[in-house]
Amino acid sequence: MNSPRPAYRLSEIVQRFGGELLGDADVRITQVATLERAGPGHISFYANSRYRKQLEQTRADAVILGADASSSTERARIVCKDAYAYFARVSALLNPPLAVDPGTHPLAAIHPTARVAPSASIGPFVSVGAGAEVGEGSLVEANCTLGDNVRIGSDCRLHSGVSVYHDCVIGDRVILHSGVIIGADGFGLAWDGGRWHKIPQIGRVLLGDDVEIGANTTIDRGALDDTVVEEGVKLDNQIQIGHNCRIGAHTAIAGCVGVAGSTRIGRYCRIGGSAMVGGHLEIADNVEISGATGVSKSITKAGTYTSLFPMSLHRDWLRNAAHIRHLDAMAERLRDLEARLVELEGKKK
Amino acid sequence: MNSPRPAYRLSEIVQRFGGELLGDADVRITQVATLERAGPGHISFYANSRYRKQLEQTRADAVILGADASSSTERARIVCKDAYAYFARVSALLNPPLAVDPGTHPLAAIHPTARVAPSASIGPFVSVGAGAEVGEGSLVEANCTLGDNVRIGSDCRLHSGVSVYHDCVIGDRVILHSGVIIGADGFGLAWDGGRWHKIPQIGRVLLGDDVEIGANTTIDRGALDDTVVEEGVKLDNQIQIGHNCRIGAHTAIAGCVGVAGSTRIGRYCRIGGSAMVGGHLEIADNVEISGATGVSKSITKAGTYTSLFPMSLHRDWLRNAAHIRHLDAMAERLRDLEARLVELEGKKK
Amino acid sequence: MNSPRPAYRLSEIVQRFGGELLGDADVRITQVATLERAGPGHISFYANSRYRKQLEQTRADAVILGADASSSTERARIVCKDAYAYFARVSALLNPPLAVDPGTHPLAAIHPTARVAPSASIGPFVSVGAGAEVGEGSLVEANCTLGDNVRIGSDCRLHSGVSVYHDCVIGDRVILHSGVIIGADGFGLAWDGGRWHKIPQIGRVLLGDDVEIGANTTIDRGALDDTVVEEGVKLDNQIQIGHNCRIGAHTAIAGCVGVAGSTRIGRYCRIGGSAMVGGHLEIADNVEISGATGVSKSITKAGTYTSLFPMSLHRDWLRNAAHIRHLDAMAERLRDLEARLVELEGKKK
Repeated sequence: MNSPRPAYRLSEIVQRFGGELLGDADVRITQVATLERAGPGHISFYANSRYRKQLEQTRADAVILGADASSSTERARIVCKDAYAYFARVSALLNPPLAVDPGTHPLAAIHPTARVAPSASIGPFVSVGAGAEVGEGSLVEANCTLGDNVRIGSDCRLHSGVSVYHDCVIGDRVILHSGVIIGADGFGLAWDGGRWHKIPQIGRVLLGDDVEIGANTTIDRGALDDTVVEEGVKLDNQIQIGHNCRIGAHTAIAGCVGVAGSTRIGRYCRIGGSAMVGGHLEIADNVEISGATGVSKSITKAGTYTSLFPMSLHRDWLRNAAHIRHLDAMAERLRDLEARLVELEGKKK
Repeated sequence: MNSPRPAYRLSEIVQRFGGELLGDADVRITQVATLERAGPGHISFYANSRYRKQLEQTRADAVILGADASSSTERARIVCKDAYAYFARVSALLNPPLAVDPGTHPLAAIHPTARVAPSASIGPFVSVGAGAEVGEGSLVEANCTLGDNVRIGSDCRLHSGVSVYHDCVIGDRVILHSGVIIGADGFGLAWDGGRWHKIPQIGRVLLGDDVEIGANTTIDRGALDDTVVEEGVKLDNQIQIGHNCRIGAHTAIAGCVGVAGSTRIGRYCRIGGSAMVGGHLEIADNVEISGATGVSKSITKAGTYTSLFPMSLHRDWLRNAAHIRHLDAMAERLRDLEARLVELEGKKK
Repeated sequence: MNSPRPAYRLSEIVQRFGGELLGDADVRITQVATLERAGPGHISFYANSRYRKQLEQTRADAVILGADASSSTERARIVCKDAYAYFARVSALLNPPLAVDPGTHPLAAIHPTARVAPSASIGPFVSVGAGAEVGEGSLVEANCTLGDNVRIGSDCRLHSGVSVYHDCVIGDRVILHSGVIIGADGFGLAWDGGRWHKIPQIGRVLLGDDVEIGANTTIDRGALDDTVVEEGVKLDNQIQIGHNCRIGAHTAIAGCVGVAGSTRIGRYCRIGGSAMVGGHLEIADNVEISGATGVSKSITKAGTYTSLFPMSLHRDWLRNAAHIRHLDAMAERLRDLEARLVELEGKKK
């Protein structure tokens, strides 16, 4: 937010990303902003009629919107099919990732057998283990630890305080936020002789290209085979992925979700925050799971799935929830009533 | 627990915090303790009749209690209105925060343009980015990473292994426990051309004064505007606060709670552990949310709210829970029975 | 996975661990593998009839299995009582923990009053506080922080990025995975004068021998007394244990579980992922709690306990869940129907 910002004329943006330009093509755009907060040099977007009032009052120099709303403002505007996706592209144009400053900080600890690409950047207090590799253009920020034989692809960004355990493999253009732990031991125990015995976790974690993983998320290494996160998967913060899981390409999982071991989640799935997915399950492609849902069996068909006890005032909950423990008895009483009523009705005739 | 402890006579404590002193005013108090474990030099408190027996048997040199219990023990005692709050004040008096030893450890990496106040303390393996500021009397423990242009107020304490991303602003007297991540990118994605595209997260995180944040809690930076945690907010461990949230002043949130993006939580709210609050919601002031509750719509009125499936023995759960999937059919059968009964009753007359 | 692997003849394995050997006793085994992926030099196990097909097709050089399955393959095999536990022992034999390379990295910060055993290993960017101790054969990986007076037993392994706050005590053979935080302040607050006041957390955390704790799990120090995790307890990733809890010996807790403060969990319990256990509860020995279950009252008897709203397609959920808020009214209507029916039946006679 402090370096001189790039600026683009509206005409240049439309040339690059398409869409129809209405109004002053020469407006210079330096940043994206919400309709409410936008000011000079800002471009905003309108994708939801809830924000109609903000659109009317915005001081943005330009707005991205759909054809149906093209006459809702007099301001310079780009009319396109998907205003939010268009906005995402413009924002990425205006906010490129910071350039990586190649080189290794003198207070890093790089094992002599590790290979760090010349264009990579290694911050202070980073430890890189024996035989590890960091690819071209990758940035490893302060206080990260890469175990022996870890492979980090090119153009990755590891924010501060990431740990990658030995032998794990990270693809290209992967983003790992602070506190991410890749490849810790899975929860593998055998009960024997009155105590738990640890089962060595000898698999790895493999992360595909273009994966992004949020702060403090953990992905355990496989017990025997590998834990796999396929390309384009996006994981939010504080997610736990158990050992031997496979997360299919382009699946997105919101914060605080737990996925127990050996579960396979399909491609293009979307899992809401704080959901829990049990172990040894199969979730099909294109499945959507609502927030706070507990998944305890496999899902074989695309669709949206939910399990959430409806919230109410605590005093109402007390009154209603008590009956949950008697639902079976209630069902039995209902059956009994039905039978007796049929009998009475028979006698009536 | 190892430095020579401060000691106060009971009379000095009452002079400082009020209350009525019964018994020996000269008892010297060096530490707080539970009724059960207290011994010589210890002061304890009694605030719940469940602990009556422990009160009778305690070996504490003094006890803090309410007027209703003032004759329940012969020991030296302070009678006051709120024994627990009084105890908190006494404990804070007896256990002041460790003095901060000013200076920067030789194995820290401070950018030349960063400004660290002379009375601040920077531990080993701390990285402080360009243009960052650390205020007077603040302590930054080992292995913390402060990004470019981060501002840390005065008298803060950052425990080991905290990461604060670039441009975030931390108020005065803020405590961040180990593993806290402030300002990681929010989960902002646009679906376009068969894959997810990252939306740059250009907002910041602003933490007000007197905020305390528990271990491994994460607060994401805003997508466009800032994520804001107002003064006096207390967050427990392993909480996730999504981008663009606003947490109102003096709200307290227990461990493992997830708050999805763009939600505004009011002032003086209390949220129980493992609750989940969905995105784009508004929670009024003074709302209490029970532990493990899923909040999927806005709450406009103060009160206590709950959603929890009652626990039972698994075999009972199996029997009862199965009916949940047929509640609508049960309701229909009930309506049908009622109609038929009305008809029968009519014929009876 | 890169050092020369140990190899054992099948006869040596049986000599060591017992069981009946069928087939070629001279087969040399170098690694364990799943039935599906096994190849030359591998031993696999068969413990679940679901994998019968994989057993038939495996290319493992040897298989561990039960007496009932001893003739299901022609391959060299070890017949034993508990194939999974036997496999665990063989895997531990074939995958011993890496040898610890004694010594302290030059880029570690060890306080002059700390005592590090000569056979211990301290990695780069590790900070060890005043009066702290690290026992014989223990390994402390990069970027760990040990506070003042911390005691780490012998033969422990602290993976990268672990923080242990002052005065906490860790037993022998304890494994702490990356991002574990031991001894952060518990969530102790008193409401007084319109704001929260912090209650100093002066207890410690005590971890027994043979405890293993997963990545990013947090265990808070006690408010007054200590938080205690007894010997042999196994905690998965991203678990939160509140202040003053006691976790009984040999209990195992899966990922993302939260245990609120002052709760005592018995010995030999098993708690499923994403469960939530409220504060100030007592859980008996040998209790099993299902995943995603919310425990809001004490459990006094061994058994399996569950609270999970059954998942369904979202549209079915919408239809059925709505009735939850009217269960009390439904029960009342049912009672009313029963009374009226009894009356009608009486008139019939």
